[in-house]
Amino acid sequence: MRGAPDAAPQRDTSRIEAFSDGVFAIAITLLILEVKVPAPPQPGQPFSLLSGLLSLWPSYFAYVLSFVTIGIYWARHHYIFVFYTKVDHPFILLNLLFLFSISFLPFPTDVLAQYIRDSANQRVATIFYTIGLFGPSFSWTLMWLYASHGYRLIDRRLGPGFVHQVTAQHIGSAILNLVGILASFVNFKWGLGASIGLTLLYLLPPRTPVYLNKPR
Amino acid sequence: MRGAPDAAPQRDTSRIEAFSDGVFAIAITLLILEVKVPAPPQPGQPFSLLSGLLSLWPSYFAYVLSFVTIGIYWARHHYIFVFYTKVDHPFILLNLLFLFSISFLPFPTDVLAQYIRDSANQRVATIFYTIGLFGPSFSWTLMWLYASHGYRLIDRRLGPGFVHQVTAQHIGSAILNLVGILASFVNFKWGLGASIGLTLLYLLPPRTPVYLNKPR
Amino acid sequence: MRGAPDAAPQRDTSRIEAFSDGVFAIAITLLILEVKVPAPPQPGQPFSLLSGLLSLWPSYFAYVLSFVTIGIYWARHHYIFVFYTKVDHPFILLNLLFLFSISFLPFPTDVLAQYIRDSANQRVATIFYTIGLFGPSFSWTLMWLYASHGYRLIDRRLGPGFVHQVTAQHIGSAILNLVGILASFVNFKWGLGASIGLTLLYLLPPRTPVYLNKPR
Amino acid sequence: MRGAPDAAPQRDTSRIEAFSDGVFAIAITLLILEVKVPAPPQPGQPFSLLSGLLSLWPSYFAYVLSFVTIGIYWARHHYIFVFYTKVDHPFILLNLLFLFSISFLPFPTDVLAQYIRDSANQRVATIFYTIGLFGPSFSWTLMWLYASHGYRLIDRRLGPGFVHQVTAQHIGSAILNLVGILASFVNFKWGLGASIGLTLLYLLPPRTPVYLNKPR
Repeated sequence: MRGAPDAAPQRDTSRIEAFSDGVFAIAITLLILEVKVPAPPQPGQPFSLLSGLLSLWPSYFAYVLSFVTIGIYWARHHYIFVFYTKVDHPFILLNLLFLFSISFLPFPTDVLAQYIRDSANQRVATIFYTIGLFGPSFSWTLMWLYASHGYRLIDRRLGPGFVHQVTAQHIGSAILNLVGILASFVNFKWGLGASIGLTLLYLLPPRTPVYLNKPR
Repeated sequence: MRGAPDAAPQRDTSRIEAFSDGVFAIAITLLILEVKVPAPPQPGQPFSLLSGLLSLWPSYFAYVLSFVTIGIYWARHHYIFVFYTKVDHPFILLNLLFLFSISFLPFPTDVLAQYIRDSANQRVATIFYTIGLFGPSFSWTLMWLYASHGYRLIDRRLGPGFVHQVTAQHIGSAILNLVGILASFVNFKWGLGASIGLTLLYLLPPRTPVYLNKPR
Repeated sequence: MRGAPDAAPQRDTSRIEAFSDGVFAIAITLLILEVKVPAPPQPGQPFSLLSGLLSLWPSYFAYVLSFVTIGIYWARHHYIFVFYTKVDHPFILLNLLFLFSISFLPFPTDVLAQYIRDSANQRVATIFYTIGLFGPSFSWTLMWLYASHGYRLIDRRLGPGFVHQVTAQHIGSAILNLVGILASFVNFKWGLGASIGLTLLYLLPPRTPVYLNKPR
Repeated sequence: MRGAPDAAPQRDTSRIEAFSDGVFAIAITLLILEVKVPAPPQPGQPFSLLSGLLSLWPSYFAYVLSFVTIGIYWARHHYIFVFYTKVDHPFILLNLLFLFSISFLPFPTDVLAQYIRDSANQRVATIFYTIGLFGPSFSWTLMWLYASHGYRLIDRRLGPGFVHQVTAQHIGSAILNLVGILASFVNFKWGLGASIGLTLLYLLPPRTPVYLNKPR
């Protein structure tokens, strides 16, 4: 009596994608709330809005960097979920961990924007931001390792060579994110440079999937 | 002339799921807005960002606990809605009540984060938070009792034993949430412990559904 | 060459529903952001969190009223969109007008919560709130009148008697909302009573649709 | 072995639409957060809520203008995505650029609302706002040029004359947005007038698509 898999409704990926899309869309749109309209130091004082807007560059910089990061993760989520044919409970928890690290990003972004010009704290702010960037990279890699191990959740028609390449790419970029944290311990400019470099790297088109003619 | 059920479009669960996913995604992502970037007590004073970030631990703690709670409810919503074959008006209202209690959670979370270190108010804050956690548990149980009673809205192929187990599980966890409220009346640490324990319990994989070969 | 309706993709209601669900979900979840954690009048002063939480009752009241209002409009949107078989450009604009009035609601809600205890301004606050409630009611009625006129966008299988009843119901509730505005001009308590009454009225189950056996 | 396009799942437009709908819905609903409840200049002072609400007209004006702008872009996104039969990586990045400019709009809207009455800064605020409006117009045009070039991503059954007309319309409205920026350099009232005019223009129904009987 247990089982009856033909009759039972399949647990596919559509609702997990819809929920993830919601979190991505909100996290990416909330970022702008951290960019505050410039105000005169004292109400009523003469004030140049133009200089006020220009002096917001740390906010713009952090905003753009985090927007691109979240946007690229959405694109990767979109790309990789086509390979998944089903989900299970541990995978749902790993996806929640990943969404946790995405929805956390507005906070280190704001910390970076407020302390990047403060010479006493800019290093701590950058370290905190690069740790914030490592979060999604790490959980994203965990998700893939869990799902691809022994073709647990992924399409059995994907070529093993392609799967290995994707695995290598995930681990490689998580390591680069770790290097970014280390770099910001040495010098905050190196940390920022590594973050920008990694983001640009992610803008490259993903690998074209290779399908076997016969499923494994 | 009334009726004509074959011709009429079916009211299925897809839109209620989409709306619920939206509320879940927003409530879970808004939580981070309550974690404020640390600032020097006086503008311009020397200030250690590192100590500022570390002293935010009550915010992190409340944030993580509420994130996991909402995330787990999403996973349970995802799990249980597969069993529903239709919706009706009272069920839509019960689901609204449930979403009400989910979207309310950021408020007791923030209360807890701000008063957990204030010895005069930490007990009240914890009681308020455990009541906040009881809300979704209670409405969630109501939804299931209404939908499963006499197989009103659920799949007729589900085994009666399985349905009874799910009912017992719902009532059991609502009672545990009540115990959490009582515990925090005695000692706020007990209340927090119960909340953490319940959250960990919810991380366990849900029961595999049992389908009959012949629908009832 | 123009036309080719068989080949052309149909513009159905699914994306307008998804976008509307998003606006509903966000507007309903943002309401909690207006409920602020109580703080001592002076930092460091002795302060009872319990009285602070209790004195927030105007915020809770306004929050619950607006949550139920938005939730019920979502349920009605869900109910009525099943009858629509297509959309056109004016209908999309009317739906935007409706979503405008829904997403505006958090503002009069907040005004009501902050001024309901201020005897000098509670009447203005209530008038403003009842006008805020009239907005969705008015645009919602416009949408139905436009779509149902000569079965422009609605299912041709719906019985004409049923369509007339739904029209009467829409116009009736818009008039009741107008009466609510007038009542709050006389006495703010009457205005609030009318708002609560209307909300409870909307909680009633919607009419079961009547389909013809042969489409018109 | 590479390729096997018949077996491989197609990357269609549904998830990019869902994500875009999310960003649209959030950006349009967040706008109301910038309209702040009026407060007495000093707590406890006599204060007329009515004058307070009336003096918020710059916020209402900016709110309505941006709401309509984002709403119209959603309607155009809905209209134009019916023509797309597939997506590729550069198109996903262009769509992210477009969503970036949409989610940025609440910020210049807020700047405009706060400085429109400040004679020293109203010109800068208007220039900033018209630049903000140019962003989505520019990226929206880029998306169309990329997708329609040689029928790269659009439906091959669309008539070439129709495609050319849509291209001309995109470029034309981007140029009008540029003119709006220039106008606000001369006089902020001209810039606002141009912004309102463009928004009204966008309210016109879009062109009915023309399909060939035989695909190209």
